Amino acid sequence: MSTIRAAVVGATGYAGAELVRILSGHPQVAPTVITARQHAGVAYDTIYPAMNGFVNLDCADSDPAMVTAQADVVFLALPHKASMAMAPELLDAGLKVVDLSADFRFANRAAYEANYQPHTCAHLLETAVYGLSEIYTEQVKAATLIGNPGCYPTSVLLPLLPLIDARLVDPETVVADCKSGVSGAGREATPTTHFCHVNESFKPYKVGGHRHTPEIEENMSRSAGRAVSVTFVPHLVPMTRGMQSTIYASLTPGATDAQVRECLASAYHDKPFVRLLADGRFPDSLHVRGTNFCDIGWTIDPGSGRLILMSVIDNLVKGAAGQAVQNMNLMVGFQETDGLDAVPYPL
Amino acid sequence: MSTIRAAVVGATGYAGAELVRILSGHPQVAPTVITARQHAGVAYDTIYPAMNGFVNLDCADSDPAMVTAQADVVFLALPHKASMAMAPELLDAGLKVVDLSADFRFANRAAYEANYQPHTCAHLLETAVYGLSEIYTEQVKAATLIGNPGCYPTSVLLPLLPLIDARLVDPETVVADCKSGVSGAGREATPTTHFCHVNESFKPYKVGGHRHTPEIEENMSRSAGRAVSVTFVPHLVPMTRGMQSTIYASLTPGATDAQVRECLASAYHDKPFVRLLADGRFPDSLHVRGTNFCDIGWTIDPGSGRLILMSVIDNLVKGAAGQAVQNMNLMVGFQETDGLDAVPYPL
Amino acid sequence: MSTIRAAVVGATGYAGAELVRILSGHPQVAPTVITARQHAGVAYDTIYPAMNGFVNLDCADSDPAMVTAQADVVFLALPHKASMAMAPELLDAGLKVVDLSADFRFANRAAYEANYQPHTCAHLLETAVYGLSEIYTEQVKAATLIGNPGCYPTSVLLPLLPLIDARLVDPETVVADCKSGVSGAGREATPTTHFCHVNESFKPYKVGGHRHTPEIEENMSRSAGRAVSVTFVPHLVPMTRGMQSTIYASLTPGATDAQVRECLASAYHDKPFVRLLADGRFPDSLHVRGTNFCDIGWTIDPGSGRLILMSVIDNLVKGAAGQAVQNMNLMVGFQETDGLDAVPYPL
Amino acid sequence: MSTIRAAVVGATGYAGAELVRILSGHPQVAPTVITARQHAGVAYDTIYPAMNGFVNLDCADSDPAMVTAQADVVFLALPHKASMAMAPELLDAGLKVVDLSADFRFANRAAYEANYQPHTCAHLLETAVYGLSEIYTEQVKAATLIGNPGCYPTSVLLPLLPLIDARLVDPETVVADCKSGVSGAGREATPTTHFCHVNESFKPYKVGGHRHTPEIEENMSRSAGRAVSVTFVPHLVPMTRGMQSTIYASLTPGATDAQVRECLASAYHDKPFVRLLADGRFPDSLHVRGTNFCDIGWTIDPGSGRLILMSVIDNLVKGAAGQAVQNMNLMVGFQETDGLDAVPYPL
Repeated sequence: MSTIRAAVVGATGYAGAELVRILSGHPQVAPTVITARQHAGVAYDTIYPAMNGFVNLDCADSDPAMVTAQADVVFLALPHKASMAMAPELLDAGLKVVDLSADFRFANRAAYEANYQPHTCAHLLETAVYGLSEIYTEQVKAATLIGNPGCYPTSVLLPLLPLIDARLVDPETVVADCKSGVSGAGREATPTTHFCHVNESFKPYKVGGHRHTPEIEENMSRSAGRAVSVTFVPHLVPMTRGMQSTIYASLTPGATDAQVRECLASAYHDKPFVRLLADGRFPDSLHVRGTNFCDIGWTIDPGSGRLILMSVIDNLVKGAAGQAVQNMNLMVGFQETDGLDAVPYPL
Repeated sequence: MSTIRAAVVGATGYAGAELVRILSGHPQVAPTVITARQHAGVAYDTIYPAMNGFVNLDCADSDPAMVTAQADVVFLALPHKASMAMAPELLDAGLKVVDLSADFRFANRAAYEANYQPHTCAHLLETAVYGLSEIYTEQVKAATLIGNPGCYPTSVLLPLLPLIDARLVDPETVVADCKSGVSGAGREATPTTHFCHVNESFKPYKVGGHRHTPEIEENMSRSAGRAVSVTFVPHLVPMTRGMQSTIYASLTPGATDAQVRECLASAYHDKPFVRLLADGRFPDSLHVRGTNFCDIGWTIDPGSGRLILMSVIDNLVKGAAGQAVQNMNLMVGFQETDGLDAVPYPL
Repeated sequence: MSTIRAAVVGATGYAGAELVRILSGHPQVAPTVITARQHAGVAYDTIYPAMNGFVNLDCADSDPAMVTAQADVVFLALPHKASMAMAPELLDAGLKVVDLSADFRFANRAAYEANYQPHTCAHLLETAVYGLSEIYTEQVKAATLIGNPGCYPTSVLLPLLPLIDARLVDPETVVADCKSGVSGAGREATPTTHFCHVNESFKPYKVGGHRHTPEIEENMSRSAGRAVSVTFVPHLVPMTRGMQSTIYASLTPGATDAQVRECLASAYHDKPFVRLLADGRFPDSLHVRGTNFCDIGWTIDPGSGRLILMSVIDNLVKGAAGQAVQNMNLMVGFQETDGLDAVPYPL
Repeated sequence: MSTIRAAVVGATGYAGAELVRILSGHPQVAPTVITARQHAGVAYDTIYPAMNGFVNLDCADSDPAMVTAQADVVFLALPHKASMAMAPELLDAGLKVVDLSADFRFANRAAYEANYQPHTCAHLLETAVYGLSEIYTEQVKAATLIGNPGCYPTSVLLPLLPLIDARLVDPETVVADCKSGVSGAGREATPTTHFCHVNESFKPYKVGGHRHTPEIEENMSRSAGRAVSVTFVPHLVPMTRGMQSTIYASLTPGATDAQVRECLASAYHDKPFVRLLADGRFPDSLHVRGTNFCDIGWTIDPGSGRLILMSVIDNLVKGAAGQAVQNMNLMVGFQETDGLDAVPYPL
């Protein structure tokens, strides 16, 4: 398999930087273009000095024609709206596009527009594939445009969808209590990301109104075969990386612990980035830090009989850049784990 | 009101140290005895150097006769079992006792014994009062023995019980997703409390088996008028102090957002340590750090109609030592806020 | 002693907020005015929700006439330049002023102007007193205008000046390696204060160019009786509050460990906010968190014979707001510890 | 180059775990034995769940004969004393040994014994090579037994030794103020490593008595050509990984900033793991987290003329396991960067 050329558009945000890291170490990819409008002309490693010696590119302006000329695959790590302004030209030129914004995550245009803004290239929603790699693997392989999932949806849907598909849980009863490290809030310095506001603080935010809710719901509904809603509350954890979700749901009548185990085992036994934990083990965000893994544990609450599903991911890797590269690997026919198989740090 | 003499038994654990702090600054209390078996004879401020100049007592051995001779009120900050071994002699001598272990929290002896061990003075369970100060205020005032609530139950029950009392929520649907700082795990150095295992880590623990579950359930059941179970999952947050609970419940048919607001306002308008947040504001553990406050917010999930209650406390203060002193204030007739009314730190 | 009225000008920055906290709990002070230009008209506790129930003032615009009419003492927690624009009018109206900026810290106008900007009321530098409370106690008592010391200078000068006064250390050999928590960088959200840039990071900054250097030097020179320079390097620690300084200096010929001990003991035995540590004990920023203490330890390096002095303060308290209130207490004749004597938290 | 077999003895400590991580990803090494006496028979990934799927070995008992039979190179990640009990048999069997304890770091037996304990195989001190890879490169290549440097000595000696060699700094004036993350204290749960004692704490420790002092001094003396002493103070930082050293020294008469730059550039221009920072840039521990880099910056203090050197390393990588593997690479003729060249994380 020969090397392909990759562009990262929006390379100085955290997801963009993580893309640069992964692609720079990918055995079959050459990053050829990294763009960052506000840093055009600046050496990338002055912005991320950790990468000094590994990334020798300067930031370029985000010119689609230039990107088209120099890359085979493009990762758009832009805010929503900016992505859909750029994607059509790239696709028309024959590039494959993995978009990390919300612009191509929704099949339902109305749901997108109700939560974001009017869609300027809605026809692409029909061909775009929601890049939840383990669930929509075959569609991803055939795709040219990926709507890369949000971090929260990834952490909620991976443990949940196989059980909804198998009719083992009642989707109407699902409550997802999710917690994210601060890098999920992005690189911009804001009151939210100020160290002194985060340290020794734990808090819910955007309760009842986070835009990952409709993204979770669309995919739950697809599995359920009917429109379902979810109760989803995000919280902010005083740590840099990591996301943990605890998901509560009623089992359907007659569903058993053993069926849950079998269902998840069947769904993920051949998926390299999902690790199902042994009974009595619960996931810890530290165990997936810096990796593309989603670790999943579960138990049946003895008092209420509710199913408790627990997952952890690194919000910047499986929750963003890692899954994006995983999707690229699937799209171009590389090994799914290429560039993503470093041995995890013990701590 | 004259000064009373207070003993802290088990003064070197974190709850004990927090008791020593609060009592040393209490305008109407003189700490006369602080005990710590393993540090008997050691100056207290060599163990907690922060208190150098404020606490000039040495740690004593935990001798009930000595305590009885020198104190009017005793705080037992001991592990369960050790408390019930000591409490009867103190009570017989006429002292008031606030016990921070689980030994006197349960009215239901069987529930206690199923989760802890055989009870050696079960007759005291009838007279002991569960010291959730805002809910059982009158009983606390009349009590001589307080079973001081656990931190998780405090954070869950304060927002929840008034709504169960008012039949606004269906208790069978309650899910409590709770998060605690590391000081909740105590002063002992263990793998759980090692900095490198906690930092950059977020994780659930004791899922389906935490002993605060039956404590929450007994009090929910008392309000509901029937036995109810709760789904409760604790998580560990990389911070020293603080506890946040997000509680999900279905409203009873016809119950409204306005009724929830009125119910909580009615329950807490004259309670100095509960602060109800304005609409659209959510609680932050940092805002109650070092204080005896419980801040409560809520919203109705727009999609599912579920009620989402959110609370924060400092696990060592309102979750332990602060509520214990609040209970003492009520028992002896001091102002409820005495010793607990320092201006909170802005950060 | 009757109550005095206090204004905090610039009350929403971290030092300002800490002033509001301390003054709101001060037994002899009534905060009557708190100003914050960008938040004029906003309830203070919406900015610092922790203080809900304790501070019921709205932020006012920073109008000197209004301040003059409503306050007896004014704390200026403004950036340099803004302070000297406001101080003269306040002083002319007979108010006492404690300025937390650098504007009145320097006796040497040239040193100030070389490091800040042209001074617009340099005549006040003659009457302003450098408010290092323990060192210039008598001058502070007689002052109407205090230049409140910087956090780094406080942490360096308190252990050092008595030894220079006593000619026990050679001032030319002094190296001060200092470390600060992030709150020292202020409330503004910047790349420097972004959680993800601070967490798991330790770094020096402004090496060879921090403006606290000339402030330290002026006071060292005053004690030495000649112009001396210092090598001072600040570092940023991933914590909210706290400052630690390790100071290296050669002893003068014949000076002994015992003389160092006696010198420091003599200087501080009657100073309530300096705690000298026993031999073999070293200071820990956690032990002074939230307090006005400066804990000081020292040892003689066995190999080189160098003196190693170590100090800790809370940068927002003894390093800013606490020392400012201590200075006010001295100026108006209150007990030095009024409002500053809460029992420290054990952790 | 064919694959070699490696053993990690003491694989469950933090340095051991980091060795397992690096060796498991090394393209030319197969980890064949990992030992941990207290966990013999336990699957390694139950102790470090992050590595689930990457390390499929069980912990073995530390039997030298077994190690000898299954490995070509052995990494001893044991406490001092345990290493020297095991090393001779391994060497006699023809294995190469990299010892991470202090047992083989000293050429001067007396210095070792004064700070540790009687040496039981002191004859090996003559052939053992101090594995400061960039300085003693040729000796390392020829060695069979490496005394792998301590973390603090690595961070101090790398910036300092070339300047002492070149007679640009006066070694008698060196002060090294060093700061380490908590992982340097090891995996054992102790009061020192308890999250609540570390978080929001910054403190010096073992002042005037840390055993890395003689290790630094022996190597400084070797370069200076005479016995010199150093003032070295370690401090504990509330972070997991990372070490920063700020080193102060007087320049020798006539030495210039330009000479310092040239000297360091000459020493390290061909060394892949030392990155010299541009003027005005200072090192940040976060930029080397998880990597084998040592980043070095410096400046001349404008007031005093002192040289200020600053370095950062990851204490577990360049300060322990990474340098150990680097030394192995040199010993067996691999590329120096093999197994150590992953792209650094941006944050």
